[in-house]
Order: sequence, then C-alpha cells, then structure tokens
Amino acid sequence: MVEKLFLLVPVGSMCALFFAFFQAKKVLRFPEGSDLMRKISASVRQGANAYLKRQYTGVGLFFGFMFLVLGVMAFYDLLTPFVPFAFITGGFFSGLSGFIGMKIATSANARTAQASSESLNRGLRVAFSAGSVMGFTVIGLGLLDLSIWFFLLKYVFYVNLAGNEAAQINAISSAMLTFGMGASSMALFARVGGGIFTKAADVGADLVGKVEAGIPEDDPRNPAVIADNVGDNVGDVAGMGADLYESYVGSIVATIALAVSAKYNFGGAAVPMLMAAVGTIASIIGTFFVRCGEKTEQKVLLGALRKGTYISSALIIVAAFPVIYYSLDCAQYPERIGVYFAVLSGLIAGVLIGFFTEYYTSASYKPTQELADASLTGPATIIIGGISLGMFSTLLPVIIVGISVLVSFFTSGGGTDFARGLYGVGISAVGMLSTLGITLATDAYGPVADNAGGIAEMSHLPAEVRERTDALDSLGNTTAATGKGFAIGSAALTALALIVAYIDEIELKASDFTFELSIINPPVLIGLFVGTMLPFLFSSMTMKAVGRAAQNIVREVRRQFKEIPGLMEGTADADYAACVDICTRSAQKEMIAPALTGIVSPIVVGIVLGVNGVAGMLAGATASGFVLAVMMANAGGAWDNAKKYIESGSHGGKGSDPHKAAVVGDTVGDPFKDTSGPSINILIKLLSMVSIVFAGLILKFSIF
Amino acid sequence: MVEKLFLLVPVGSMCALFFAFFQAKKVLRFPEGSDLMRKISASVRQGANAYLKRQYTGVGLFFGFMFLVLGVMAFYDLLTPFVPFAFITGGFFSGLSGFIGMKIATSANARTAQASSESLNRGLRVAFSAGSVMGFTVIGLGLLDLSIWFFLLKYVFYVNLAGNEAAQINAISSAMLTFGMGASSMALFARVGGGIFTKAADVGADLVGKVEAGIPEDDPRNPAVIADNVGDNVGDVAGMGADLYESYVGSIVATIALAVSAKYNFGGAAVPMLMAAVGTIASIIGTFFVRCGEKTEQKVLLGALRKGTYISSALIIVAAFPVIYYSLDCAQYPERIGVYFAVLSGLIAGVLIGFFTEYYTSASYKPTQELADASLTGPATIIIGGISLGMFSTLLPVIIVGISVLVSFFTSGGGTDFARGLYGVGISAVGMLSTLGITLATDAYGPVADNAGGIAEMSHLPAEVRERTDALDSLGNTTAATGKGFAIGSAALTALALIVAYIDEIELKASDFTFELSIINPPVLIGLFVGTMLPFLFSSMTMKAVGRAAQNIVREVRRQFKEIPGLMEGTADADYAACVDICTRSAQKEMIAPALTGIVSPIVVGIVLGVNGVAGMLAGATASGFVLAVMMANAGGAWDNAKKYIESGSHGGKGSDPHKAAVVGDTVGDPFKDTSGPSINILIKLLSMVSIVFAGLILKFSIF
Repeated sequence: MVEKLFLLVPVGSMCALFFAFFQAKKVLRFPEGSDLMRKISASVRQGANAYLKRQYTGVGLFFGFMFLVLGVMAFYDLLTPFVPFAFITGGFFSGLSGFIGMKIATSANARTAQASSESLNRGLRVAFSAGSVMGFTVIGLGLLDLSIWFFLLKYVFYVNLAGNEAAQINAISSAMLTFGMGASSMALFARVGGGIFTKAADVGADLVGKVEAGIPEDDPRNPAVIADNVGDNVGDVAGMGADLYESYVGSIVATIALAVSAKYNFGGAAVPMLMAAVGTIASIIGTFFVRCGEKTEQKVLLGALRKGTYISSALIIVAAFPVIYYSLDCAQYPERIGVYFAVLSGLIAGVLIGFFTEYYTSASYKPTQELADASLTGPATIIIGGISLGMFSTLLPVIIVGISVLVSFFTSGGGTDFARGLYGVGISAVGMLSTLGITLATDAYGPVADNAGGIAEMSHLPAEVRERTDALDSLGNTTAATGKGFAIGSAALTALALIVAYIDEIELKASDFTFELSIINPPVLIGLFVGTMLPFLFSSMTMKAVGRAAQNIVREVRRQFKEIPGLMEGTADADYAACVDICTRSAQKEMIAPALTGIVSPIVVGIVLGVNGVAGMLAGATASGFVLAVMMANAGGAWDNAKKYIESGSHGGKGSDPHKAAVVGDTVGDPFKDTSGPSINILIKLLSMVSIVFAGLILKFSIF
Repeated sequence: MVEKLFLLVPVGSMCALFFAFFQAKKVLRFPEGSDLMRKISASVRQGANAYLKRQYTGVGLFFGFMFLVLGVMAFYDLLTPFVPFAFITGGFFSGLSGFIGMKIATSANARTAQASSESLNRGLRVAFSAGSVMGFTVIGLGLLDLSIWFFLLKYVFYVNLAGNEAAQINAISSAMLTFGMGASSMALFARVGGGIFTKAADVGADLVGKVEAGIPEDDPRNPAVIADNVGDNVGDVAGMGADLYESYVGSIVATIALAVSAKYNFGGAAVPMLMAAVGTIASIIGTFFVRCGEKTEQKVLLGALRKGTYISSALIIVAAFPVIYYSLDCAQYPERIGVYFAVLSGLIAGVLIGFFTEYYTSASYKPTQELADASLTGPATIIIGGISLGMFSTLLPVIIVGISVLVSFFTSGGGTDFARGLYGVGISAVGMLSTLGITLATDAYGPVADNAGGIAEMSHLPAEVRERTDALDSLGNTTAATGKGFAIGSAALTALALIVAYIDEIELKASDFTFELSIINPPVLIGLFVGTMLPFLFSSMTMKAVGRAAQNIVREVRRQFKEIPGLMEGTADADYAACVDICTRSAQKEMIAPALTGIVSPIVVGIVLGVNGVAGMLAGATASGFVLAVMMANAGGAWDNAKKYIESGSHGGKGSDPHKAAVVGDTVGDPFKDTSGPSINILIKLLSMVSIVFAGLILKFSIF
C-alpha cells in the first residue's frame, strides 16, 4: 500500500514542474512594452545573468573541491560512496531553482509594467505568475531530486538491504541528508552573495543618488540603478529560492531520518514526502484563486493573495488526514493519528509567525507608526526605536515555535516514546512547508513588482501606471515580510529536526557512543556559547561586506557623475554595466569568508569539543540564529515601512527632517533585513548539515 | 585547621571596611574648592540622594512584598525559615554598597577638580581613593554578610547537623543562595533604574543642548546638566556597585553549594571565601602602587592604574596556592591541587576579556579608528559599522570563557569526577572576582573623574585644569570599558556556577527527581529558545524606557529654554531640580517592567516547562545574554570613542558632518553600553537565583 503511495511523489514533482512551465509560457506571452522598456529589462536581465554565471563558476570550484574531499572521505570509509554525488545534486538543483526563478523574474518585470498600464489585475497576474514559476520550480525540483535518490537507493543501491527495512531506510536517509548539505551550501552562497549584491547596489545608489545628488529613487541618471534592480533578482529571487529549496528538502530528509528511530520505517518515511506531494497539488489549486479588481488598497490586494494561501492550507488540512491514516497504518494503531496534529501545528505556526511579522513591520499597525514618530527627534532615536522594536518582536515567534514543538512532540506520542515525539517535530516543519509552492509564489512576486515599478519610472509611463505598480510593489513589501517570517520559522523547525537527525546519525555510526548531552556538561555548554555567538559573528561579516561593497559603488557613482559630461542633464547615458560588475565582483569576494565560517565551524568545534559539543553548538546556533534573524528582519522591515509611512505624508513627508532620519533607519535596515537576517536561516541549517555529513570524521578525530 | 582558616573571612571583611573608611576620611580631607564648585557639587549630591531615597522607598516595598511571599512559602515548607531573612539582608547590603559608594563619589567630584588644579597626581589620587571606597565597601560588606550567615547557620541554626558535614553545608548553602537572590533583585533595580536615569539625562541633555541649541556639553545653561552628572553617580557608581556585589557573593555562594556534590565539604566551601579574603588583602596592597607623574598621556596613566591591578593579581596567584593546598588537604590528596589552575584560568580570563574589550573600544586601536572612518559616509554607515564591530567582538570573549571553563573543569578533576569539575568552574569565577576590590576601584574612579570634569567646566577653572580632568576622564572611559568586560565575564561564569547550583538544589529537594537535561528534550530545547530570547526582550524594554524618559527631558529642557528669560544669556539659573525629578520619576516607573520580567520568567517557565525547561532557559539566557551584553557594551564604547577620536581632530573635527554622524552613533550607543548591556549581566544571574529559590515551588506546581 505505502509503496504504491510513494509514486505520488514523482507525480507531485511533475505536476509542479509542468505547472511552472505553463506559468512561464503564460508570462512570456505578455508584451514587453515600448523599446525603452525592453532595453531596460534587457539590461537588468544581462546583469543578473552575468552575476549568476560568475557566481556559479566560483561556486562550481567550491563544489568540485568538496566533491574531492567527500570522495577521499568515502574512500577511507568515513562516508558511503553515494555521498559525494548526492552532495553535487543537492547543490545543482538548488542552484537550478534559483536560476530558473530568476530567469523568469527578469523576463517578467517589463511585462508586469506593461500589463499594469492596462489594468491592475493584469499586472498582478503577470507578477504573481512569474512568482509562481519560482515557487513551483523549487518544490518540483526538490521532489524530483528526492524521488530520484529515494528510488535509486531503495531499488538499486541498497536493494540488498530490502530484508531489513530499518537498516535500509537508515542507509537511504544518511545518503539523502548529504544532498541537503549540497543544497545548503549552494543556498548560503546564493543568499549571502545575492544579499551583498542587492544591498551594496541599493545602499550605494541611495547614498550618492538620493542623499548627495538629490535625484529620486529609480532615476535613470543614477549609474547604480540597474545594479539595484539586478540585485532584487539575484538576492530576493535567486537567493530566496535556493534558501527555501533547502528548507524544503532539509525538513523532508530530516524527518525521513527520524522515521527509523521512531520505528515507523517506510510508512513514516512516506509521510513527509507525501505531505509535500499533496501540498503541491493544493498549492496549484490555490493559485487559481489569486485575482483582484481595480482597487489599489493594500487590504484588498493582500486579501487576493491571502485567499490563495488560505485555500491551499485548507486543502492540505483535509488531505493530510488520509495521508497519515494510511501511511502510518492508523487502522491498526489508532494512536498514531496524533501525528496529524503535528502537521496542523506546523501549518498554524507558519501562518501565525507570518501574521506577527506583518504586525511588527507594517505601517498599518501601531509598532511601525510609533517608530515613525521616533523620527521626530532625529536619526538616533529612530535607530534605538527600530532595534528595540526588532528585539521585542522576538517574543511571540519564540513562543509560537515553542508551542508548536511541544504540541507536535506530545500529540505524536513523545510522552511515552521520545523518538516518536521528535518525529512529530520533524513533521511539523514539513507541515509548515507544505504550502511552500504558493507561499513562495507570493513572495517571489515582490521583486518582480518592485522591478516593474522601476521600469515604469525609468521609461516614463503615465502616473496612473506608476500608481498601480506602486500598489503592487507595496504589497510585495508586505508579502516579503511575511515570507521572511515564514522562511525563518521553517528554518528553525528544520534545524531542530536536523539536530535530532545528527544525534541519530552518530548513533548509527557508533552504536557504542554514549551521549552526554546534558546542558551542564562543559563541552555541551561551551558548544552552546560558541553556537550562540556564531550568528552574531556571521552577521557582522555580512554587514561589513555590504558596507565595503557599497563603498565601492559610492566611489563609482561619484566618478561617473563627475566624469561623464551631460549625465545629470539627461543627455548622456550612465555606464550601468560598470556598477553591475563592481557589485558582482564584490559579492563574489565577500561571500567567501561568511560561507566558510558556516562550513568550517562545525568541524573545528567537533574536533575540539567532540560530538556533544557539536550538539550544543547546533542548539545554541539555532536558538540564537532564530532570535537574531527575527530581530534583524523585523527591525529592517519596520524601518523601511516607517520611511514609506512618512513619505506618504506623515511628519512633514518627503524631504523633511523626520524623513531624513527615517532614511538613515532604512539604510541601516537594508543589510539587516536583506543580507544578514535571511542568511542566518541558511547558516543554522548548514551547520547541522555539515555536522551530519562530517559526523564520521568528528567521531574519529575529536579530542574528547 | 580549616575551621580556623575560616576566621580569615571576617578578618578580610574588616580590613576591607576599615580601608574603605580610611580612604573616605582621606578623600574628605581634601578641599572642595570655590563656592561655585561647592554649590555644583552639592546640587549633584542632593539629586543623587533624592534619587536613591526614592529608589530605596520603591524597592523597599518590593522587598517587603517578597518577604511576605517567601514567608508564606516557608510557612508551607517550600523553603527553610531563614530564606526570607537572608533575602532581605542580601538586598540590604547590596543597596548599602551602592549607597556608600555613591555618597563618597558625590563628595569627591569637586575635590578631584580642585586637586587637579594643583597636580595631575593629586587629582588621580583623590578620584582613585573615592573609587576604592566603593570597591572595598562592596567586598567588605559582601564578606561581612557571608561571614555572619555562615557562622550563624553553622554554629547556631544548623548546629544540630554538625555530625553530618555534607547535610549541614547543603542546608547552609541553600539558605545563603537566597541572599544572593536578594542582592540580585536589588542590583537589577539599581542597574536598570540607574541606567535609565543616567542615559535619559545624557541623551535628553545632548539632544536639546548640543544638537538643537548648539551649546557645549556640561554647559551650566543646560537645565539637564546636573541630572546628567547625577546620572553618572546613580548609574555608574551605585548601579555598578550593586551589580558586582551580587556577582561577588553569587560566585562564592554558588561555589559553596558545589562543594558538597564535589564531596569537598567544608574544605571546599572554605576555598571561595578564603580566596575572597586573600584577594581583599592583595587588593589593598595593590592600591598603594597607583600613582602617576604629570604626563597626561593615556598610556602612562593607564599604566599607573594597571600596575595596582597587576600587583594584586600577582599576590593572589602566590597566595592562592597555600589556600587551596591547606583547605583541600592536598598533602593527603595531591590531585586536588588542580583546583589552583581553575583560579588561574579565571584570573587570566578576566584580564584577557578586559584587554579585548579595550582593543575593540579604544581609539588607540584599529577597530574604533575604522569605525570613525565610517562616519565619512554618514550616520547610517557608522551605525552599521558599530553594530558589526560589536557583533564581531563577541568571538574572542566567548572563546576565552570557553577555554576558561574547559581548563577549570578538567584541571579540577572533571574528567573523572563530573561534580569536581563543575566545582572548578565555580572556583574560576571566584578567581576572576578575587581582584574585585581594586578592579572596582579603578572602575568607580571613572564617574568621579567625569563629574570632576563637568564641575571644572561649569565653574570656569583654567584650561590646564580642564586638560588634566579631561585626561582623567578619558582614562575613566577606558577603565569603564575594561570594567564592563570584567563585569560581563564574571557574570557569565557566575551564572554558569549558579545553573549547576540550581540542579544541585533540585536534587537536594527531590532526590527521586530524574533530570532529562539533554538538549534535545523538547522542554529543555524550548526553554533554551525562551532563555535565548529573554535578554533581547529585556534589552528592548530598557532601551524603550530610556527613549521615553529622554523624551520627557527633551520637553522639559525645551520648556525651560523658552520660558526662563535670560537663561541662554547666562543671567538666570536653570531649574536643575526639575530635570533631576523627571529622571527620578521616569527611572522609578520604567524599571518595574524589566525587573519583573527577570523575576517572573523563571517561575512561569518553571510552571509551564518544568524543572528541565528552567535549566534550558538558564543556559540559553546565560549564553545569549553574555553575547548580547558584550556586543552592546563594545558597540557603545566604540561609538563613544570614535566620536571622541573625531573631536580630537580627525575627519574635520567638532562640528563637521562626520562628527554629526558620530554623535548619532554615540547617542545610539548610550543605552547600549550604559543601560541595556550592563543590566543583562544581572538579568542572567537573577534568573538563576530566582530559579534556585523557587525550586521547591516549581517542583510542586509544574505541569511537566
């Protein structure tokens, strides 16, 4: 029975990929508008392609190196021989997701601007369709990679273990976790590199253009304006896609690994994959409900997007029941149906975290409005206010994740069987991510709308079109905030599942190893301290990188303003490519150190503090990374919207002193919310993945 | 043998108190200078007294309430009957330390200004003597309280247990831990209230005086100038004193508690107290080496202060050996001498953390100089740079604490006997704090010098005097930074010892309770998340409180500038008392919520997540609190000194755009380094103390 249900997984994958293909076709049928619009869009596309090409070349070298390292380890029997290959495929599919999503996003920007000149609904449909290409490519490729490896390992490589179900699935999940590490590594490079690119361009463009030269945002005279638009695509589309690809497959493979110690075996391994497959169908159905009228009010537009997500969630709630009932054989073991509530708790936690993220960052609510008031007494008070807001906003997400973990642990039987409870925690992460197709679509929609607004401005489309693209863009900011909350929440749950998978992996590798995971065991405690510090160190590195890269852009823009005659008068063109090139080179250079920190730390901590120390480090990094990421994302989002709130007329509007103070807040918030904050999500998962893959090495060479 | 050695403790206490008394006498023999200087000094003194009076009244109510609560709990046998009384004495002595320190500091400010007009060395001697009154009062009262309770409990209340050494010392340490909680509560109110007062006055005075009205710092026309000086005393003297009083006794009683499970009994309990007594003598000797010539260079002055600390440390290193040798009977058990290395590791860790704090915050080194460069591109980049610097600066302190814990654990025999290793960790905290007398003297010296500078400015003393007080003040900033590092480091080690003491306390109360402290046990994990979040929540509250209180000051100063005719021309006096009063009321009101968060959280977490959850929370809060406190203190210190660096002539000097940007950084840094950061130290210790005292309640009423 369960074996046949498994076939649903490749089916779900194909559905997602076909749907993404048709959505892409649909987007490409829309006209691109005037020659100028085509030209601008082409510049952005070229820049983005050039960036990705360079990034994939650099990352390719890293993957080649890691392939060798893992190969040598496999040769010395520290790893199974599939590991190097699994690692490569994880990285490849993660990168491919980002690449396809970005391809279509950069093709959809001018088309969205053009469609908006016809009607708001058309604009929304084009941008949302482009976003959904991203969303469904991610889940389609994720499920494809999972299916291929699962079937290969089960029916070809480990077919000899078919008699011992537990041993077979253990072997399978071990190999599959490696492709999670491949995906994580790729995601980290994409997120960090993209995040540095986008914010260097944004901050650099603003510092010289808006502040020094006094020209508006998105003004074509600003040489960094194309780089800024490219950045939206490489950071918020390609980076985000790689990030969530990684959470998606990470949560699934971690839960598969937990199925064995929970003694659910194949039925238990089936649940996460089937939930994902079912979620795919539900997400596709949901997208058909996303449409709007001509009202530009945010509430109405937001309602249009939300409708799709809510319908998908409702469908999953219905479909999860039979999936769990049959997979876990609940007819015979009725108590196992408790796992269903783990799915629910994950889904609900995702919605709640998204809601509170919006509450703390949207100008429709009190916190951001009060933050805007702080601009009246200057930049210092708005900075203090934003950091304070961000810190305060960590309370509820922590409580929500806490309740979700408790509920999923106990409803899944953790009270009597510890391993089953932990399996439930894994399932709650899967539940949260089951709506990923549509959630990511509403998220990736944002940068497309943002780009469309830029193109409308640069190609001088009529004011009513700007109004529409502004409405779409503003909506994108809200969905970006919600999406960030979702990405952080799912990363935390996934990381927790991975920590347990790490412990399982050690037990598998060294059955005689006795853990001393007590938090008062000094190696655990010190690991905890180190783990708590890592997200801070990592954020420091990424923020400094943005600062350095932005300085390069500032110098280049100043140079062009001075050296290109007629640029400010609009009679000469800026050299956009130079800025794109600087951002590309800076991002490539600057992403190395933080990425290496993520990869090297677990190995160093493992060798110095041993297996227990690594567990402490993972727990510390997950907790502190979660809190810090929420703080940075929400502070950044609130500063951004406080600035927009003032621009819409409060406290003197654009150009007033409070506005200038708010611009300072927004600039500080840029690397917070778009570089450091989101990169932490991947850091905490990558740390776990590396720990799992190098578990054998650590067992062998650790001092303790 | 050991019993007789115990008598050294009250002797040490008396030495410290007599020394403090003679130092106070000496300070008071110096002349106060002109009538104007007397008048200003009197205003500051009055303001500070008024504040403390109001604070102690409010806190008195809280202590009365807690006395009743603890009394009821004792009545129902959840606590021993000594607990309520111990709680009160801890609070009383902590408050008294702050009070005496502040009394003498506010009497020494004009005297230091006057002495500086004679020679730099005289100025230094007066300010340092005033600081040493604080330092030795803290350790003297700490040892007094410890001795009284120890002797009362051992020879009166628990004399019936004399036959069973382990049971007796367990009972003693349980009761004594409660006075740690009293001290923590008092310290939290003092730190938070004082921190809010000082920064509200400082920020408020700067925002209107420097930024809006364009008058210099410490200008007597600014109505908030006296409040600003009062703030230095109530925050940096009284608050700091209460904080370190609490670390001091906390580390000692925690280690006494650990002596039982380490099976060292009275010998083991003697070591921390004797180390403290020996440290007292060493600190007194050290103070005699603090003297300087007439060179105002920072390096020379710093060397003068450092000399005292280094000599004290060297004496302790020598004296610790016989203390441990005899107390732990190393003649018979030679392996026990390893505990000596725990003392060393704590001492060295304290020095190293202080050094790296200075490295990251002093304008003599690269990080702060680079931060000053970031001011060239405006306030946003200096804010990003400062946060990034603060985050990066957490790496080394975490590694230092980690190594210190590992070394003290293993040299004390943790490899074969877990409890003995943990005892070593407690001893390393004691070792770090053994130089407290002189460390705190160099720290409390800062606000006196700062006040002296203000008085010199306000009473128009000659430029050469200003130069000297500026040199002393600047030195004070460095020692304040080092002192903060020391306070944070010792708080972390103390908190770790307290976590273990908490586990011991539960085992004592419910010997049948089986811990599940594994970090993958969901209650522990969720506790860890909640604990990690608490310092963020707490900092958010304290920063917001400063913001609100500063707004009140801004309004009042603006009102006085507008309504008092002749104020700006210098023909009329400002109403200083009004600003002091506003700060006092704001601080009293605003300190309640954060303080309650610290007291209530462990109880709520205990009831919801049980004993294991509390342990997770304590570990999470200690790790994240340590990292966050280091980050905030160092970011704040670096911003402060980057501003001073620019004021000394770099990047255009005072009034330039970079300077304005640096002022924004400094203002953001004010609540970071003087309110939120240092308050976190106490939060993490208070959480442990409350958990220990309410352990019985939690065992009885927790859901799990």
